[in-house]
Amino acid sequence: MKKEKLLVAKIGGNIIEDEKALSSFLEDFSKVEGAKILIHGGGKSATKLANQLGVKTEMIDGRRITSSDNLDIVVMTYAGLLNKKIVAELQKYNSNALGLTGADANIIQAKKRSVQFIDYGYVGDVVKVDPTIITSFLGQGIVPVFCAVTHDSKGQLFNTNADTIASEIASAMSTNFDVSLFYCFELKGVLENIEDKNSVIEHIDLNKYSQLRDDEVIADGMLPKLQNCFDALQKNVSKVHIANADFIKNNNTKHTTLSL
Amino acid sequence: MKKEKLLVAKIGGNIIEDEKALSSFLEDFSKVEGAKILIHGGGKSATKLANQLGVKTEMIDGRRITSSDNLDIVVMTYAGLLNKKIVAELQKYNSNALGLTGADANIIQAKKRSVQFIDYGYVGDVVKVDPTIITSFLGQGIVPVFCAVTHDSKGQLFNTNADTIASEIASAMSTNFDVSLFYCFELKGVLENIEDKNSVIEHIDLNKYSQLRDDEVIADGMLPKLQNCFDALQKNVSKVHIANADFIKNNNTKHTTLSL
Repeated sequence: MKKEKLLVAKIGGNIIEDEKALSSFLEDFSKVEGAKILIHGGGKSATKLANQLGVKTEMIDGRRITSSDNLDIVVMTYAGLLNKKIVAELQKYNSNALGLTGADANIIQAKKRSVQFIDYGYVGDVVKVDPTIITSFLGQGIVPVFCAVTHDSKGQLFNTNADTIASEIASAMSTNFDVSLFYCFELKGVLENIEDKNSVIEHIDLNKYSQLRDDEVIADGMLPKLQNCFDALQKNVSKVHIANADFIKNNNTKHTTLSL
Repeated sequence: MKKEKLLVAKIGGNIIEDEKALSSFLEDFSKVEGAKILIHGGGKSATKLANQLGVKTEMIDGRRITSSDNLDIVVMTYAGLLNKKIVAELQKYNSNALGLTGADANIIQAKKRSVQFIDYGYVGDVVKVDPTIITSFLGQGIVPVFCAVTHDSKGQLFNTNADTIASEIASAMSTNFDVSLFYCFELKGVLENIEDKNSVIEHIDLNKYSQLRDDEVIADGMLPKLQNCFDALQKNVSKVHIANADFIKNNNTKHTTLSL
C-alpha cells in the first residue's frame, strides 16, 4: 500500500528571530497540503533572555551548556514564547497547530547526555519517539509544532537539539508515512564556500560528505546537521533537503539534497 | 444514558509557587481515576519574572494590565516554565499530561476585553471553547493541562483569567460529561472570617452569595471566583467546590460547595 506523504520541516536560526521572515514562512507552510509537522529552535532568543536576566550563556561546539537557570530560560523561550507565537500565527493561517514539547503526551523520551569530557548539564539525547500519538494528531487534521525540549519521563525536562528532534521524529514516522525532511534556514543550502551564498552543493551523498569533511569544506555547525540528515535517511526517511525557507513554496529553488 | 464523570481542577496561587505543595498535589491528582483536566494560573511567577526583567506590573482588581512585554512574560511563564514543569511532573506519576494554551488546536477562542473605564491590554475574554478536541484527547487517555493563555484565531495571544478558563472548559464539557469543577487553593474554602482559617462556609447558593456580597463578607478576589462557580452551575456543571489542595485525595475535608 502506498504510504501517505508527510512533511517534517525544521526552522531555526535567523528565520525565527525575524518576525517578517517567520510570518512569511508560516504562511507558506500553512499552504502545504497534507500531513505536516514543524520543529523549531530558538537559541538566539534564549541567549537574549539569558543576557537580560544576567544568566551566563556558555556554548561548546554550538551546544548550550544548560544549567538549571539556562534550562528554565530555554523552556520559557522555546516552549513558551516562540512555540505559542508560532501556533497562534499558524492558527491565523487556518493551520490547526498544536504546540508540543517531548514531555507532552510523553512523545519524546530522552536521557541526560553522559559526561565524557564535557558536562552539558540538562541536555538530553533522544531515546525514543512515540509515533502513535503523532499519527493520531495528524489524523485529526492537527499540525504538531515541536520545540527543542524533551524529558526523561521521570520529571526532568531537557534542552535537546532541534535538528536532532526533527531527524528522530522524521525517522519514527517513516514506518507509516512517506516522509520528506526539510531543514530550512537562511542560506540556500550547504555551501562550497561560505563567503559565496550561491555556491550551493546541490547533492551530497555519504561519499561526498566524507570528502567534504576531510577537506574541511563544511564547518562545525554543519557537521551535526548533516549527520542528522544521514541518520534520517538510514532510518527510511524518503527525502532530506537543506534549503532556504523559500523552498517550501518553490521546490525549484537551488538547494542541497542528501542521499545515502 | 449515564454520562461519564470528568474532573476539572484548577490550581493557582500558593500551590504553584511552592514546589513541594505542587508536587504533592500533582501526585494526588495523578491518582484520581477517570477523565480529568487541569487548569493552572501562575501570576506570582509572572510578576517575579517581570521584576527581574524590569518590566512594570500593574494590577487592577486582581487583574493584570497586560502590555506587550507583560504578555510575553505571561506566555513564557504560564505556557513555558510552569505548564511544562507540571506536564513533566505528571508524566513522572504516569499521567499522560498534554500542556495546552487556548491557541493550541484552536481550543479556546477569546477576544480582547473591551475598554470601558480601563484598558487591560492583551487580556482576552473567552468567546468559545471547543469540547470536541478535548473529548478526543480524553478518549486517548490524555490529561489536558491548560494554562491561562488564549488567542483570537487571528494570531494574537491573550492573558486570560485561569478561574474563568476552568469555568468555561467545565461548562463546555458538560454536554457530554458529568463534570465536577474543583477550585483548589491554599485555604480550606470560602471563609466567613479571613482571619480564621477554619471559618469555612460549607455551602453557598445564590441567595447566600447575594447575602455575603451585601454584607461584604467576601472580598474582591473571591467575587469573580464565585461568579465563575455560578456561571458553571448555570451551564450544567454538576458539582462545584472551592477547597484546599488536600480535597483531591480526601473528599471529607471541610470545604465550600456551591449550588444554584
